[in-house]
Amino acid sequence: MYIEGKNAIRQAIDSKITINKIMVDKNYQGRKDDIINLAVQNKIKFEFVPRVVLDKKSKTAHHQGYIAESVDFNYCEVTDILQKAKSLEQKPFVVLLDGIEDPHNFGAIIRSCECAGVHGIVIPKNRAVQVNETVIRTSTGAIANMLIAKVTNLKDAITLLKENGVWVYACEAGGENIYDKKMDEAVGLVIGSEGFGVKKSILSYCDGTVALPLMGKVNSLNASVACGVIVFEVLRQRLRGEK
Amino acid sequence: MYIEGKNAIRQAIDSKITINKIMVDKNYQGRKDDIINLAVQNKIKFEFVPRVVLDKKSKTAHHQGYIAESVDFNYCEVTDILQKAKSLEQKPFVVLLDGIEDPHNFGAIIRSCECAGVHGIVIPKNRAVQVNETVIRTSTGAIANMLIAKVTNLKDAITLLKENGVWVYACEAGGENIYDKKMDEAVGLVIGSEGFGVKKSILSYCDGTVALPLMGKVNSLNASVACGVIVFEVLRQRLRGEK
Repeated sequence: MYIEGKNAIRQAIDSKITINKIMVDKNYQGRKDDIINLAVQNKIKFEFVPRVVLDKKSKTAHHQGYIAESVDFNYCEVTDILQKAKSLEQKPFVVLLDGIEDPHNFGAIIRSCECAGVHGIVIPKNRAVQVNETVIRTSTGAIANMLIAKVTNLKDAITLLKENGVWVYACEAGGENIYDKKMDEAVGLVIGSEGFGVKKSILSYCDGTVALPLMGKVNSLNASVACGVIVFEVLRQRLRGEK
Repeated sequence: MYIEGKNAIRQAIDSKITINKIMVDKNYQGRKDDIINLAVQNKIKFEFVPRVVLDKKSKTAHHQGYIAESVDFNYCEVTDILQKAKSLEQKPFVVLLDGIEDPHNFGAIIRSCECAGVHGIVIPKNRAVQVNETVIRTSTGAIANMLIAKVTNLKDAITLLKENGVWVYACEAGGENIYDKKMDEAVGLVIGSEGFGVKKSILSYCDGTVALPLMGKVNSLNASVACGVIVFEVLRQRLRGEK
């Protein structure tokens, strides 16, 4: 994975993403340089290369003279998420994303989940956005503190969670009003994709469906906002120990 | 205001934005055409122009052969928002944005507010994003159902709301836990900008500061997610009539 531009590289270093090396425009050699200082502080290898090398590697055309080569994001297993909850002596709190496609939404979801005390996020291997540079940047560092499991089959992950005492709910229009529902048990929340919601084939694996009451004419929230509102309702119930 | 591309124009028409005319690439003359059909149905004038005219007017370079000329968005007064609440026999529920800059955030905020039953949004005239094409598109039609007041001075708007019995709270890190706070009265919520939060000069005009409890290491949510979580907490309290 390549990470381009000063800000993105700074975020990646802050997020403890493992970086193999940073390539820097050789015209910058010898000058006072934030990124090089950061590389030195964090013992990250850097090398000076001709601008044309960076231009060739760049996908965004906004590398600003800096491209970092990082190892791919280190995904975990669903059992690692359950283990994390156990080690914290908390009831598992898991979010499953059924095909989120927009990296900005994924990044914002990681950020919201980290803030709400979610133990881990499960994403499918196919037909969904993976952790990339935009996701890392949009998560504003939250990704360093979040377990993310990538699974071949979301249904198997749901089954595994249910076997471990987790109640799994799809978040979908027409579901039970979440404010009338006891959500402070071990819980897994399935968030649907931006365009299509939770797949029917996934719905049948869930213990139920929950929804937010909507008072207007628009029939859905942005996927990352919906996820934020819902994980914070779970947090609220957990903190107060009541509906 | 120019609105470019098929989707954006379709959204604008759905959102009841007043469109003066739609300019269409004259090469499309005579062919079966969604946008022209929509224009005919909605009695919107259209004219065929050479592609080069569209290219010249385009700011996005993605006009796809269609540019609509619309009147500027029809902002309202703060008193109109209070009037709307009154006519619905509801306690006023207002959101004030202190310098949101990202049109995607603004659009998502309009969408969340519409879903949560907010009566209107107040934005400052300067140093903040205004209603533009991206905002309209991101609001996914919610803007047609939302009053937006543009004011010279946010402080005067806060004073006016307070004079009308509205409790105005800044949403800002370090504030009182919103889940411990009675929020089902007439309420105005000030949401800060993406980078800087609520300005100190504005804070002193508010009746108090509320915040979400954050359980992770990241110290803030995305501005549109934060707004979504907070307006839905107000809605929850209103629906249940309790803290």
